[in-house]
Amino acid sequence: MTTLSTELTQQILAAVEAGFEDQIAFTEQLTRFPSLRGQEHTAQDFLFQELKARGYTMDRWAIDVNDICHHPGFSPVTVDYSNAINVVGAMRPANETGRSLILNGHVDVVPTGPDSMWTTPSFEPRRDGDWLYGRGVADMKAGLAANIFAVEALKSLGYRPAATLYQQSVVEEECTGNGALACLQRGYRADAAIIPEPEDDMLVRANVGVIWFRVRVEGLPVHVREAGSGANAIEAAYALIQGLRELEADWNTRKHDHRYFEDLEHPINFNVGKIEGGDWASSVPAWCEFDCRIAIYPGVHAQDAANEIENHLRRVSDGIPFLANNPPQITFNGFFAEGYVLEEGTEAEETLARAHLSSYAKPLESFVTPGYLDGRVFVIYGETPCLVYGPYSEGIHGFDERVKLSSVKRVTGTIALFIAEWCGLEPI
Amino acid sequence: MTTLSTELTQQILAAVEAGFEDQIAFTEQLTRFPSLRGQEHTAQDFLFQELKARGYTMDRWAIDVNDICHHPGFSPVTVDYSNAINVVGAMRPANETGRSLILNGHVDVVPTGPDSMWTTPSFEPRRDGDWLYGRGVADMKAGLAANIFAVEALKSLGYRPAATLYQQSVVEEECTGNGALACLQRGYRADAAIIPEPEDDMLVRANVGVIWFRVRVEGLPVHVREAGSGANAIEAAYALIQGLRELEADWNTRKHDHRYFEDLEHPINFNVGKIEGGDWASSVPAWCEFDCRIAIYPGVHAQDAANEIENHLRRVSDGIPFLANNPPQITFNGFFAEGYVLEEGTEAEETLARAHLSSYAKPLESFVTPGYLDGRVFVIYGETPCLVYGPYSEGIHGFDERVKLSSVKRVTGTIALFIAEWCGLEPI
Repeated sequence: MTTLSTELTQQILAAVEAGFEDQIAFTEQLTRFPSLRGQEHTAQDFLFQELKARGYTMDRWAIDVNDICHHPGFSPVTVDYSNAINVVGAMRPANETGRSLILNGHVDVVPTGPDSMWTTPSFEPRRDGDWLYGRGVADMKAGLAANIFAVEALKSLGYRPAATLYQQSVVEEECTGNGALACLQRGYRADAAIIPEPEDDMLVRANVGVIWFRVRVEGLPVHVREAGSGANAIEAAYALIQGLRELEADWNTRKHDHRYFEDLEHPINFNVGKIEGGDWASSVPAWCEFDCRIAIYPGVHAQDAANEIENHLRRVSDGIPFLANNPPQITFNGFFAEGYVLEEGTEAEETLARAHLSSYAKPLESFVTPGYLDGRVFVIYGETPCLVYGPYSEGIHGFDERVKLSSVKRVTGTIALFIAEWCGLEPI
Repeated sequence: MTTLSTELTQQILAAVEAGFEDQIAFTEQLTRFPSLRGQEHTAQDFLFQELKARGYTMDRWAIDVNDICHHPGFSPVTVDYSNAINVVGAMRPANETGRSLILNGHVDVVPTGPDSMWTTPSFEPRRDGDWLYGRGVADMKAGLAANIFAVEALKSLGYRPAATLYQQSVVEEECTGNGALACLQRGYRADAAIIPEPEDDMLVRANVGVIWFRVRVEGLPVHVREAGSGANAIEAAYALIQGLRELEADWNTRKHDHRYFEDLEHPINFNVGKIEGGDWASSVPAWCEFDCRIAIYPGVHAQDAANEIENHLRRVSDGIPFLANNPPQITFNGFFAEGYVLEEGTEAEETLARAHLSSYAKPLESFVTPGYLDGRVFVIYGETPCLVYGPYSEGIHGFDERVKLSSVKRVTGTIALFIAEWCGLEPI
């Protein structure tokens, strides 16, 4: 491959610009599907139809746990996967002369929280100046649309990629990573992959792995008039949460052993994200359970971290009479995923840097992020350079989630230029 | 009235004994109705039919909040009262020569908690030796049955009370006390009242009032990768719970100002009984709410205590940056009820003491209890001596709740003897 001519570069960016209002409309359409976990299938059916209409050959399947459960990248599942459907569209050239590419994105979105905390309804996209608002619009429906419209821009110039290009829309990115894993297990491979997650116009150099777990405390409830003889499960749970904050602090002190993480102030974040316990104000609660998320450094095996979590919680429990008699039950119920490092110096990254420079008129920066990314599936298990790179956003996993449209346009331009150089182009 | 002859006393106790297997069967039948809050109506319909069949003239009505909301004993309501039905049966003599009496009990039961923590299903009564197990069997379906079968024992001897006797089965005792209050508002009055709550064969001399409230913390959620910039509502909630434990400790130091409470080790119990917050392990939780119960001494007005709770929570919040910006919302959503003292030396108590001595062959003891009782409605607002006195139990508000049958039999004997002396008897 050769680098793109200035003329072609400008043509491609102009084509992205020309299609951008359609792209926004498409992003808005996709945002209206409330693709919460277990309900992604209608959004996936929409994408299936949209890709098919654009000439892709289509593949659509529900994840089968049996297919992936022995894979080292598998995360435990506690939900039914009947509607956990992946969609992949393939575009094959007449002559395979370039390097193949996977454009990946996830269609699942996190819960909205109370509607009252949104300025306008969460699944009704709202455009306000350079911002597009809505749950999942940044994380990452704008990215899915960018993947599709980057190819459309090339098509509008009479080109298609001169190598096999896969559009992947996966589920389960927000909880297990099993969607991307199921694509790998199904045999999807390419010379590079791009995932336009909301990364504030930067490339992810490294990221943490993530582990999810649920802790359940159960004990003897009594009438509150005998409160002294019972044990309050809600307060016992809190003792464990405090213990996990200590583990988090300990893991953060280890950052100096992990390249790229030394300079981060707080690379390992622990979060208690959900809690539920008890059923009556006047009964001492007999049970309480809470859902946690903690990060691990690349190179740390999920199982080793899980063992450490269990041992730590056992030690904390030993110091608390009630918990010592009623040890907490720990269930690993989601992410069991390792982090990854994108090694410097790949051709894919160099290609991205050139495309970015052309689209943004400034150099590509990379950074280290303390959140889970499906990139780990490609990098660790597919041995594929995976470029997680995407638009500027605010409020993801929060309220009034929004993505910056001018940033989305530039990202789309970068992807289109990347395809043109990486895959090469052939006339349609 | 005169005290009962030894012969009549023995006849009455023998009649209670003779009817006791039927009484247990009745108690078991009543226990099978899962009369949780909002679902008491089927149990009430059963009691309506059973009282009607036994010759009572019946009254049955759904509590109307408008009827009671201006009463000083009213507790705020956040649920629909369509099925919050009170049942009262009246038995009137041919000649009203004695003193009238209300036999009161509540039919509502507290939630069961996880089924897995019960030895056998919670609403399926199980008899094992001298124990009868089941949710609500002690608190207080055995008491409701004792009220009914005490009168049946007299009837089996050819007598009925020589004064008006009301059988009241009320709802809402476990959360507001509005059921008993609605009976008072409807005009039910008598010269004394008995409530056979599970009080371990003793008379309640004094009890605390109870206040329920819900605390809601709401703030900005973010992706956990930005955990530092958000505020974790679950952990903010715990800071408030800790603050409320301090308030509890402070209130306990005031026990010396309250007659009958000086000698209790810990008269004021605070409980956090229910918690719920967040929706996703990987999102910093934006909200958390928890339900609380705290006791107040007799003579303390609920509104004054409520003000103190609010002020205290405001002070705690001021010390926590996130809470200072997002003050917690406090809702008084249930009990707003004052405690009472049963003054010593009433004729009703003397009558109960004689009846108890005959039934138990040992003197009546009284005690002070740190739990809510509907007795406050009678004592404070009805100016009626109310004898809260009932059987031995274990595990109320817990698992494997159970009542001691030999104790229930003696309590029933006491009530029958009380009726015979207090109301007098007339031949049917």
